[in-house]
Amino acid sequence: MTVLILTGEEDVTADMVVVHLNASSVPVVRLDPADLTAGVALSGEYVHGSFRGHLSAGGRLVSVNGLRSVWVRRPGVPASRAAQSSAWLTEEASQALYGMLRGCAARWMNHPDAARRARHKPWQLRLAQRSGLPVPATLITTFPQAAREFAERFPDLVVKPVSGAHPQEPPRAVPTSRVAPDTDFGAVAYGPTLLQRRVAKRADIRLTVVGDTLLAARKATPADADPDEVDVRFATSDMPWLPTEVPPRVAAAVRTYLREAELVYGAFDFAEDADGTWWFLECNQSGQFGFIEVETGQPIARTIAEWLARPTPEDRDHVKGRRTVAP
Amino acid sequence: MTVLILTGEEDVTADMVVVHLNASSVPVVRLDPADLTAGVALSGEYVHGSFRGHLSAGGRLVSVNGLRSVWVRRPGVPASRAAQSSAWLTEEASQALYGMLRGCAARWMNHPDAARRARHKPWQLRLAQRSGLPVPATLITTFPQAAREFAERFPDLVVKPVSGAHPQEPPRAVPTSRVAPDTDFGAVAYGPTLLQRRVAKRADIRLTVVGDTLLAARKATPADADPDEVDVRFATSDMPWLPTEVPPRVAAAVRTYLREAELVYGAFDFAEDADGTWWFLECNQSGQFGFIEVETGQPIARTIAEWLARPTPEDRDHVKGRRTVAP
Repeated sequence: MTVLILTGEEDVTADMVVVHLNASSVPVVRLDPADLTAGVALSGEYVHGSFRGHLSAGGRLVSVNGLRSVWVRRPGVPASRAAQSSAWLTEEASQALYGMLRGCAARWMNHPDAARRARHKPWQLRLAQRSGLPVPATLITTFPQAAREFAERFPDLVVKPVSGAHPQEPPRAVPTSRVAPDTDFGAVAYGPTLLQRRVAKRADIRLTVVGDTLLAARKATPADADPDEVDVRFATSDMPWLPTEVPPRVAAAVRTYLREAELVYGAFDFAEDADGTWWFLECNQSGQFGFIEVETGQPIARTIAEWLARPTPEDRDHVKGRRTVAP
Repeated sequence: MTVLILTGEEDVTADMVVVHLNASSVPVVRLDPADLTAGVALSGEYVHGSFRGHLSAGGRLVSVNGLRSVWVRRPGVPASRAAQSSAWLTEEASQALYGMLRGCAARWMNHPDAARRARHKPWQLRLAQRSGLPVPATLITTFPQAAREFAERFPDLVVKPVSGAHPQEPPRAVPTSRVAPDTDFGAVAYGPTLLQRRVAKRADIRLTVVGDTLLAARKATPADADPDEVDVRFATSDMPWLPTEVPPRVAAAVRTYLREAELVYGAFDFAEDADGTWWFLECNQSGQFGFIEVETGQPIARTIAEWLARPTPEDRDHVKGRRTVAP
């Protein structure tokens, strides 16, 4: 049973996981959907009530029914590197590849449907609330008056994009910014705006969850930090990321969140306040983990490799007289 | 409790359903996401562990928590009619609107995730097989050799797009076509190709399913029909669509299909062969039904209206001493 990794050619984070898979002799096929019809080929046959499918990449042929797991890392746009690429060919290639893979029994990290849903920030906030995670008061609105009233109730606010996307090309991350006290909010009418109570933080928390494993890292906020430096990704602090314990209540809530979200991988961002409360900011279902692993030494790549390599029920049937995993 | 209909302004099929909803005095809000920030506004507040959201369209304000059901008919691209439309604004507006709606308890026809998954034809074929529906032998491939071998085993083939999309602008439907006996299949290498055994049909079947209600229509194939006229949408036949009974085995399989697909509306296309077997061709989760209703008189619009209007558990709590729906 093979592990399928969907990602681009240059992906050192995927490389980190492949090293562990190779070390445990688990067969791996790595494939970029962008290479479909030029380097990557597929075939699936539906005859007499059953399905037989194959993928070919880099000269290797793998059976779709023989896939143990699929890791959707950073796949390219299907067929985008084909000789005659077009929106139509992309649609055809996407439907063919993912349509075939969706029908197989492999475990997904993460399933495309769950991944897509999980990107909706309003949905994240609601699920975090329901899972028992503290969520800073948040407003998403196109009503200037609603924004003004919210700013009266919560005078210390930050603003961030609803989608996380950047309005300019090439796309890059938009820093979360502090809202000036005299902001007018009239422009809110032209596009949904996300306003959130600023958490006066003493640390940033990155909690990486892989299956049942929780690995938390903490980056303390310097005592003399500029309160306008809201976004850890753009902060000038040279405090290190250090491993930290996950409070049991947070651990339980995070497990609930991921179960409801049908995700097996999630990178949670929290802001820790002066009372030690972890405030939910977001959960990125495809969040990077390389920088955390490098700084903290936490075995994230190995844990992902172990999850992907976990024996299937079929494998276990072949192991006589011995269970390799819990039922 | 309000019914929310997401669709464009000109949608006579939606009009047919609204007539029935109005007749039963169920509140309806109709909204095109394309009008976001220009005519349509939204606001959602996440404070103290709870959510309060509102949508405004055509001067009407509706509470998101007060939605009974959401009918995703033919919604426009979010914010595409805004004064300063852009891919970024579309992404922001889409995440804000659908992110909020995804968090509410309303019933969906159909849920966006289920709808998206259901468009994958390879996935449809596999699910149809598993649900016990007869599926004509099908191959989806980029291997010319696989296509050649398939054509040897099944000499009478049709070809259709994997995605149903058309390579040219403006998009239109691509007719399913018969494959000529001397086809070379070399071009298969440049794009996934769907080949399917042609069913020698004596009728086309359109089975429209709304919740638990199955409404089947049958259009007989004229005895002198040209066998190259494979696609009923493009056929010149003037045979009428007539209501027909659903064989019990098909009914059970179709219910299994929709339950597994998490769809509450589906328009199935079958080809009926000389033995009376219904061969599964596809299930369109947003298939048109107006033409069938007009020709057969089947009450599809009314059935949709009834499903959308069905009381929620909350409504039922307010009905004293009397149950309006089965538990």
